[in-house]
Amino acid sequence: MLIVKILGLDSSGLVAGVAVVEDDVLLAEYTTNYKKTHSQTLLPMLDELRRMIELELDTLDAVAVSSGPGSFTGLRIGSATAKGLGLALGKPLVEVPTLEGLAWNLCGTDRLVCPLMDARRNQVYTAAYEFERRGESFALLPVIGQAPIDIVEMLEKLNALSREVIFLGDGVPVYQSLIREHCRAPYAFAPAGNSRQRAASVASLGAVYMRQGKTVSAAEHQPEYLRKSQAEQER
Amino acid sequence: MLIVKILGLDSSGLVAGVAVVEDDVLLAEYTTNYKKTHSQTLLPMLDELRRMIELELDTLDAVAVSSGPGSFTGLRIGSATAKGLGLALGKPLVEVPTLEGLAWNLCGTDRLVCPLMDARRNQVYTAAYEFERRGESFALLPVIGQAPIDIVEMLEKLNALSREVIFLGDGVPVYQSLIREHCRAPYAFAPAGNSRQRAASVASLGAVYMRQGKTVSAAEHQPEYLRKSQAEQER
Repeated sequence: MLIVKILGLDSSGLVAGVAVVEDDVLLAEYTTNYKKTHSQTLLPMLDELRRMIELELDTLDAVAVSSGPGSFTGLRIGSATAKGLGLALGKPLVEVPTLEGLAWNLCGTDRLVCPLMDARRNQVYTAAYEFERRGESFALLPVIGQAPIDIVEMLEKLNALSREVIFLGDGVPVYQSLIREHCRAPYAFAPAGNSRQRAASVASLGAVYMRQGKTVSAAEHQPEYLRKSQAEQER
Repeated sequence: MLIVKILGLDSSGLVAGVAVVEDDVLLAEYTTNYKKTHSQTLLPMLDELRRMIELELDTLDAVAVSSGPGSFTGLRIGSATAKGLGLALGKPLVEVPTLEGLAWNLCGTDRLVCPLMDARRNQVYTAAYEFERRGESFALLPVIGQAPIDIVEMLEKLNALSREVIFLGDGVPVYQSLIREHCRAPYAFAPAGNSRQRAASVASLGAVYMRQGKTVSAAEHQPEYLRKSQAEQER
């Protein structure tokens, strides 16, 4: 298996995260979930982490970035940072869809994994995934494709599958009471350490995608918003 | 459910980690897996993280620490740090056995979880756990109790259980070829983001134990080495 050293960035939601993964080891991860804006946190966190593990940025093989959906501003900051690094270092980017990165936190469960990102007005960005063991590792497979959708409609889709589900993401506290009311499948919530975006998962899943040749150039990369911004909708 | 705000520390192995969990949200986590000694990294990392999320240490309810087994020096640094903080802040400590903290990384899997910490000379600190869903969360249950044991003997015990296993920990790269040779149960390795000690898991599982009343005072806490140091054995 090709050894890759990869930087992961996630600023798609409230979390700002940077991580470096080499082969199957996490060299460093720095995560904050705080009211500061990502423009104040993401680069200082990367710089701190770089100094702590004496990381030479030109030893990276690629930069993986949480590519959406998510907060418009957050995605733009993450993408701009990844593009800047990729261009300066002459390294490719790996786009990791935000919901896949979230699901990867729970890699190894046999339950359905349902990330819920609050998109306001009872809408969530969501999808459902399952893991399939292939040899000594796991592959992430979509069961319900990603979409912005009404939370109750998503719960009905899950009910129809009659499988145990684990929910995670910032939509969980927002829609907890709707889940309790409408979810007839047995369900649980992910524990704190794996319940929100993690740059380590973006880097780790990014390494899988890189080995599959799924990279883009810094110039090509665009975040995927899944729906138009409120300003665009109103225009 | 009682809301707790808890600091987690892990310096039991090669990883140095600090994390803060409040209720079921990870407020911040900082992890490094690098050649620097923990006495050079753990407190500076805590200080960095504290400044980044403007954490007032006296708002913590407890300090959770990875309590062993592990590296003797690493455990002493983690315990000394936790004791110092607990004493200064007048807050209790929560002891999270290192192998349980590691297993908690994979919370939500239905497979057996087998953390392997290299203890040299073909020995590992190990145990096997399973998760049981209880309401909306999971409980961690021991299936094979923790012990320092020969790796092949542990693999024979796992074979006898005939269940799928996920291995993680720093013993994985060391004993990978022995696992491939002797493990007859279907198995996989945890992905990079969850394959080593995480302070977020120590804090998150520590919060569970705190709600169960499992705390000790700073004065009472002692790391659990599971076996004597080489110097003690030779004496």
